[in-house]
Amino acid sequence: MPDDSTGKPRFKSKTSFKGGGGKGRFQSGARGGYRPGGQASGRPHRGGGPPEVMDDGIVRLFGFHPVEAALGNPDRVLKRMWATENAAHRLAEAIALRGLTPEPVTPRDLDRMLGADTVHQGLLLETELLPEPELADLAEAAADGGPLILLDQVTDPHNAGAILRSAAAFGASGVITTRRHSAPLNGTLAKSASGALELVKIAQVQNLARAMSELRNAGVTVLGLDGTATAAIEDEPFDGAVAIVLGAEGKGLRQLTADSCDRLVRITTADDLRSLNVSNAAAVALHTALVRRNRR
Amino acid sequence: MPDDSTGKPRFKSKTSFKGGGGKGRFQSGARGGYRPGGQASGRPHRGGGPPEVMDDGIVRLFGFHPVEAALGNPDRVLKRMWATENAAHRLAEAIALRGLTPEPVTPRDLDRMLGADTVHQGLLLETELLPEPELADLAEAAADGGPLILLDQVTDPHNAGAILRSAAAFGASGVITTRRHSAPLNGTLAKSASGALELVKIAQVQNLARAMSELRNAGVTVLGLDGTATAAIEDEPFDGAVAIVLGAEGKGLRQLTADSCDRLVRITTADDLRSLNVSNAAAVALHTALVRRNRR
Repeated sequence: MPDDSTGKPRFKSKTSFKGGGGKGRFQSGARGGYRPGGQASGRPHRGGGPPEVMDDGIVRLFGFHPVEAALGNPDRVLKRMWATENAAHRLAEAIALRGLTPEPVTPRDLDRMLGADTVHQGLLLETELLPEPELADLAEAAADGGPLILLDQVTDPHNAGAILRSAAAFGASGVITTRRHSAPLNGTLAKSASGALELVKIAQVQNLARAMSELRNAGVTVLGLDGTATAAIEDEPFDGAVAIVLGAEGKGLRQLTADSCDRLVRITTADDLRSLNVSNAAAVALHTALVRRNRR
Repeated sequence: MPDDSTGKPRFKSKTSFKGGGGKGRFQSGARGGYRPGGQASGRPHRGGGPPEVMDDGIVRLFGFHPVEAALGNPDRVLKRMWATENAAHRLAEAIALRGLTPEPVTPRDLDRMLGADTVHQGLLLETELLPEPELADLAEAAADGGPLILLDQVTDPHNAGAILRSAAAFGASGVITTRRHSAPLNGTLAKSASGALELVKIAQVQNLARAMSELRNAGVTVLGLDGTATAAIEDEPFDGAVAIVLGAEGKGLRQLTADSCDRLVRITTADDLRSLNVSNAAAVALHTALVRRNRR
């Protein structure tokens, strides 16, 4: 098993996920309005997206940390793997434990398959999308754990990936995104997440305002991050289940999203005119919540 | 003059910069070991780099926020501008105030000049590199202001740009990078900085350990961020001039860099095994310092 500092994928949640673990097909845990389209059924992936998410719901992960973390995640259903000799050697133990036989390739082969700009580090792994948690389970996890992060149309996969990485580091209870107008859960996002895609529970919803309403009904306090708010996130008690909503770069929260929050809060800055990168804002918000919770 | 939320470039420092302001050529304020190579002298830019930093020390800025901010920065010496009709109209006032006449182009022309993946938003501005502050001035600014950020071989321009953006938002007194093995101060970095390249004082040094020694001699407390440290940055008093050193993604601080710090501190996380994206770590560190200073 991988044993370096990024190679210990696991779910902290008390809720269990069905499927995975070598059965070659999982049953989605989602029901009602939050069913992941096309995952459990094998129907085509909706909305197209970049080549790393293929039409049959298969995700192509690449790069050392994402592939190592996926190999170590029993919930990740693996389909096919390509590796250079060096890369296969480096991950030999993890590959053997999953019973995989990578197809040998050269770096140039992978350049051709993924595009020359892709930092594949000799590794390509085709997998199914991960099963999604239910909102009720995320609300329950947030009651005892860190905040939930809600992303309102954050489309950049590098930002979304960095947010997952911070969510794992600061102990967020999960991430909720919109199914449309969000960064696809693809290889580019996984690379920026540096293995955290396997660690953080992610639910994709059709309608963010409806999900926010459902969370509030389940006892979650929903905070919208807004640089123009008068209340400061540093003054929040973080003493119950909390969700933090972040808007898209440049646009911020949509009006309906802002209206669906319990309250709007700003991150304290030295210069009110300057905005933060959305992943930096998420990191600061999650760190603030963690430090406040630790102080109790 | 631009008046939206990203268009108020200014330096907060009491120290003045020579040159700039339409003279077409500035005298570098740097001396001794921290002279910016090839800027004042017009010698070729060292180290090659992407096409946005050209061999004669000219930087190509693109995208709305970076170009708007550069037009509004009197220290930024402008050379040549290209703009689509729409983009020129949008920035007409700022362009007129600088006495520029943009050369008309189509979006496709700019795609060809900058590469099809570049988000130029109809704007390309050739400028000189900005004058650099001296270390002594940065140390003096940090005595009354926010921390300095030192980057130990952070090579990714998106990360470096996001760090500049956070530095502007959280009131950092300046950023110090190594001249080699760092992200060049180019258009890609400027785009990620979203205008903050014009706001944050940046010094590039040959030798980071020597710069750290100089800062310490000037009374600056130098903190190295290291996930394995026992002391926590949240416990720092931030009651005098402070510099925070961040290492490269994956590598962390080099040994000599770590040895040159007053002390090493970690950011409190929920999961000690997980690392943070370097720009997220910078944002959390700067926010922590600001909140602590505000509390006094």
